[in-house]
Amino acid sequence: MPSSPPAFPFGDAILARAHALACHSDVPAVDVPPGAARPLTVTYLTEAHRACAADLLQWMRDDGFDEAGIDAVGNVVGVYRGTDPAAPRLLTGSHYDTVRDAGRYDGRLGIFVPMACVRELHRQGRRLPFDLEVVGFAEEEGQRFAATFIGSGALVGQFDPAWLDLRDADGVSMREAMRAAGHDPAAVPALARDPSRYRGFIEVHIEQGPVLCSAGLPLGVVTAINGSVRFVGEMTGVACHAGTTPMGQRRDAAAGVAELVLYVERRAGEVPDIVGTVGQMHVPDGSINVVPGRCRFSLDLRAPGDAARDALVADVLAELAAIAARRGLRYTLDETMRASAAPSDPALQRRWERAVAATGVPVFHLPSGAGHDAMKLHEAMPQAMLFMRGDNDGISHNPLEAINAADTQLAVEAFLHFLVQLTEEPPSMTGIR
Amino acid sequence: MPSSPPAFPFGDAILARAHALACHSDVPAVDVPPGAARPLTVTYLTEAHRACAADLLQWMRDDGFDEAGIDAVGNVVGVYRGTDPAAPRLLTGSHYDTVRDAGRYDGRLGIFVPMACVRELHRQGRRLPFDLEVVGFAEEEGQRFAATFIGSGALVGQFDPAWLDLRDADGVSMREAMRAAGHDPAAVPALARDPSRYRGFIEVHIEQGPVLCSAGLPLGVVTAINGSVRFVGEMTGVACHAGTTPMGQRRDAAAGVAELVLYVERRAGEVPDIVGTVGQMHVPDGSINVVPGRCRFSLDLRAPGDAARDALVADVLAELAAIAARRGLRYTLDETMRASAAPSDPALQRRWERAVAATGVPVFHLPSGAGHDAMKLHEAMPQAMLFMRGDNDGISHNPLEAINAADTQLAVEAFLHFLVQLTEEPPSMTGIR
Repeated sequence: MPSSPPAFPFGDAILARAHALACHSDVPAVDVPPGAARPLTVTYLTEAHRACAADLLQWMRDDGFDEAGIDAVGNVVGVYRGTDPAAPRLLTGSHYDTVRDAGRYDGRLGIFVPMACVRELHRQGRRLPFDLEVVGFAEEEGQRFAATFIGSGALVGQFDPAWLDLRDADGVSMREAMRAAGHDPAAVPALARDPSRYRGFIEVHIEQGPVLCSAGLPLGVVTAINGSVRFVGEMTGVACHAGTTPMGQRRDAAAGVAELVLYVERRAGEVPDIVGTVGQMHVPDGSINVVPGRCRFSLDLRAPGDAARDALVADVLAELAAIAARRGLRYTLDETMRASAAPSDPALQRRWERAVAATGVPVFHLPSGAGHDAMKLHEAMPQAMLFMRGDNDGISHNPLEAINAADTQLAVEAFLHFLVQLTEEPPSMTGIR
Repeated sequence: MPSSPPAFPFGDAILARAHALACHSDVPAVDVPPGAARPLTVTYLTEAHRACAADLLQWMRDDGFDEAGIDAVGNVVGVYRGTDPAAPRLLTGSHYDTVRDAGRYDGRLGIFVPMACVRELHRQGRRLPFDLEVVGFAEEEGQRFAATFIGSGALVGQFDPAWLDLRDADGVSMREAMRAAGHDPAAVPALARDPSRYRGFIEVHIEQGPVLCSAGLPLGVVTAINGSVRFVGEMTGVACHAGTTPMGQRRDAAAGVAELVLYVERRAGEVPDIVGTVGQMHVPDGSINVVPGRCRFSLDLRAPGDAARDALVADVLAELAAIAARRGLRYTLDETMRASAAPSDPALQRRWERAVAATGVPVFHLPSGAGHDAMKLHEAMPQAMLFMRGDNDGISHNPLEAINAADTQLAVEAFLHFLVQLTEEPPSMTGIR
């Protein structure tokens, strides 16, 4: 009796590969109950990291890539040659390193999906009219060294030579780690791509948030990677006796921060797709019977465009100043990070919309609140991302991170459709430079 | 050429005694700049504490007290005999122990002021129609052992024998400390006073708050020692990615606590003389880019009457529940302290009003936000307190605690007037049971 074909052949294959790749971890899993997700940690150029690269390389060869190799920063790069070697290439991929105690899909899904497409095209004996270049980026998460986007940064000429002297927690420098892995740091600058040789960059990624899960949709078209600004600050008032100081004579630093927290929440909530967070809040040496004289806080403000981000920042800073003036408080505020928004290229975004629609899924838009490799490539070429739903409300950076085979099947089908669109349309209609 | 008499003889003498008593400290003052106030620490039955008791005892004898001694808990007790040994006594006093890094006047002023009155009465050869009993209470602040009001507690029969087994930070038990000081713990229960033998208890104390300083007044009549309730709690929401979780899908524990902070501030501010404070507020392990999943907080709620206190507590707890329900948060809340309000005895309070008026100072009323020995005596007899202004906005529990000779002079004059009122009125008009 013949067995029936699997319902989600692409999805099942990708989940199997994600499980297989998760065998390699910097930290051995101990005391993980049977059936529970095993926490995963794969940081830049560790033994587990190099084992992952070796697996990806082998799978690219198995899938029918014409070229496959590991470059000087550890990126695993495969090329499926098109019919016209002179046509601009399409670049895609994501990262295979992880945070500590990670799940199995953050980054890696964006390598597995185009690999599955190449495998299918190769199986059909089909060639695209352009080269498809798939990259497993070696590093995005910034876990081992105080540097992030090492892999995608190298492709846009932003590998900082000063990084080579950074040392990990064990005192090993990045230079030493690269040499131990057989890489030549001097060869990194040559990895920078010539943007004129590329149509653009696309990336598939799990959402890492609850929006698609709440909407009941497997796929979402990303409109922009949010720009963000971070601050840390402290409000200072006057510490005094909680019993003997009348309410009207207080300068309560914690009450000032409380006002700020609620303002940030309200202001961010007024505009779709922007977010504002006070993640840290602390009265140092606070006592139950002392009115807080100091209160530390952080601010994380993000918006899909730099103008919206800057308007949010301006309003929050104005409110902070107003709160302090009204309450007789002083404050410090230090900016610790600023990243520009990376709006999706309109033409590439439209292709994702048509690809999603072709799978029968309603087209749903959302911004990316988190940073991704596409944010780096954005500095060199047009980019657009496709998000796939994470189960468990999109929990991520956590062993509970989960996806399902049905959604993954749809992601592969959408990616294939994206490629077919480029194939079937005359070059003048591609809308990609 | 004869020198002119001092402008504030009682005030100057008390400031000199306060300076002299401040020579005894548990912790030697090191690195105190010349002219700066020296931090003071005198905790129960230390060497410095016993030196303070010895000084107070000697001064009582110098001032003309007829009886003076140190009782079994370390209270220094002096009696200035009246003309009628059968008349109910007037009890007064305050504590001579201190918090760590204290000033010189918290507690001690309330011993020095009646001592100055006795010295003056004795100088004039004048006797009151009743015994005046002045007590320097050995302990009120709860610094060395986990017990407070040891001195005044003993007078109302509330010395808990279980306290004898409490140990200080060096492992010394209270029993051992008492025996080393020559005290017999078995003799403590006999210190409890028979309320029928007393007219009541009065206490002079620095305000330890900014009200009199703001009002520009040296003295204030206390209407009640506020009742209080304290809680510690934690709100729990869901920690999630600050970039990828839309504002409408968050359960932010810190935002919940922020609402509570502002509600407490608003609700307490609506009613005169009540206070509410969130002194502790902390997102444990908070990250700049993570929506707070937990936030710890404390609550300190005080009001001049138990009914007002309980109404405040009920409103705050109802709001806490409403915030949690609205935001999908959970919370824990543990009550850590509850003290009843101690309203001043109306007749004694009226005497303070007349005494203050007699000094030419406008009569000003305020509650006591802090606890005092009078709170303990309240459980056995009528009580009423007089507050004296603290300079520097009433800062207390701090070496910067300050008073001036002019205010102190007025406090002694008011106390003398209080005594004269009792002397000149026929017993039927005293209004004191």
